[in-house]
Amino acid sequence: MTQTPMLKVLAFDVFGTVVDWRGPICAESGLFLEKIGQQHIDSGQFTDDWRKKYLTGMASYAKSGREFTILDVLHREMLEETLRDHGIDPATLDPALLQDWTFAWRRLAPWPGSVEGLTRLKRRFPIVTLSNGNIALMLEMARRGGLPWDTIMGAEVTRAYKPDPRAYLGTAEVLGLAPGDVCLVAAHHSDLAAARKCGLKTAFVARPMEYGGRPAPDAKLEQDWEWSADSLVELADQLGC
Amino acid sequence: MTQTPMLKVLAFDVFGTVVDWRGPICAESGLFLEKIGQQHIDSGQFTDDWRKKYLTGMASYAKSGREFTILDVLHREMLEETLRDHGIDPATLDPALLQDWTFAWRRLAPWPGSVEGLTRLKRRFPIVTLSNGNIALMLEMARRGGLPWDTIMGAEVTRAYKPDPRAYLGTAEVLGLAPGDVCLVAAHHSDLAAARKCGLKTAFVARPMEYGGRPAPDAKLEQDWEWSADSLVELADQLGC
Repeated sequence: MTQTPMLKVLAFDVFGTVVDWRGPICAESGLFLEKIGQQHIDSGQFTDDWRKKYLTGMASYAKSGREFTILDVLHREMLEETLRDHGIDPATLDPALLQDWTFAWRRLAPWPGSVEGLTRLKRRFPIVTLSNGNIALMLEMARRGGLPWDTIMGAEVTRAYKPDPRAYLGTAEVLGLAPGDVCLVAAHHSDLAAARKCGLKTAFVARPMEYGGRPAPDAKLEQDWEWSADSLVELADQLGC
Repeated sequence: MTQTPMLKVLAFDVFGTVVDWRGPICAESGLFLEKIGQQHIDSGQFTDDWRKKYLTGMASYAKSGREFTILDVLHREMLEETLRDHGIDPATLDPALLQDWTFAWRRLAPWPGSVEGLTRLKRRFPIVTLSNGNIALMLEMARRGGLPWDTIMGAEVTRAYKPDPRAYLGTAEVLGLAPGDVCLVAAHHSDLAAARKCGLKTAFVARPMEYGGRPAPDAKLEQDWEWSADSLVELADQLGC
């Protein structure tokens, strides 16, 4: 009967933080490129080109003035652009194949320890996504990978893309919490820096293989985050879960 | 690598279907009425009056033209109206007490078998809420009661209240599914009838104690639903989970 304030919440970036994107997208793109007779194109380069369009698109989305559009649709557009950059006209390809290729982003596999770490963290904290992925995408990924989210939040709930402040502040608002009661868990310094500016707590998880061992594009934005761990299992240790 | 269409989804009404509202709200309201020195008011009647405002409010929300407002806020307004109807001026009461009383709706307990039934259904189908409850409310209720949702959907995602068709159609759209690929599970014939008009599949779960054993206000809207069960465990049996 006592007042029961919502527990503090852990909100997770997903692409790169909870799941690996480069390995799976590279493997699938290699097979799709072969299927369309373009196996001479380097699938690693193709993957990096596709992801770069995402990073650029998200960083400039708010300024673009474009109406909110879900990531499944943006991923498809970016795939088509990447194909054009490589001299392939997507209009000559089977639309079902393009959709399947796009949905490779729904099939990303958890990093080792992600499911165990989330399961332990969930014992003590509500765990939600704060990802740019849309709900259908995140739901399929969670079902395939066994990611035990309490609920899927982020882009589609706030209708804003990180690093737009409305994505972070809107998530806290929907949770009925002050920004400082929400902790963003992410492998990206740029994401954490934007969250901190909005007043959220921050937890960094190192993912040195996200870019195949090369430095991340935002490596220079590193700060002294509230927590820093090498895996979600280690973060669970640090948070006493 | 094959195309992996999203599995069909089970979308659940929550108040009355997954959790009991009358028993818990009646018990908490009895204690709150005592706390404010109004123990002469019948807590069962008070609970029914409060719930009736909800049913009326939801049925007329779309027509009212009011901007979308989350249920936590509406529950508070309706509590204050119910108090006034009983001759109590809410302005004379402690706002923290009123908020705690309002949040009794976050503390509703699952019906017997709900957690077991949902856990079994989740093995085969994604299970999501299609409730008028807002995310923070549903999240706290799920954490307290151990309701294993894949994700919380409904009002705040579609910004529409059932029985507004936009609530059902918008949920299917966000899931990336045709309405016929989503099955609403509910204890209320009125909810199921509205879902069916939108093309959703329907599963009825009987909750004869929802109104303390009295007939539900929508009893006459009964139809031949695709599935009909006496509990979520029985529904899991019927769906082969």
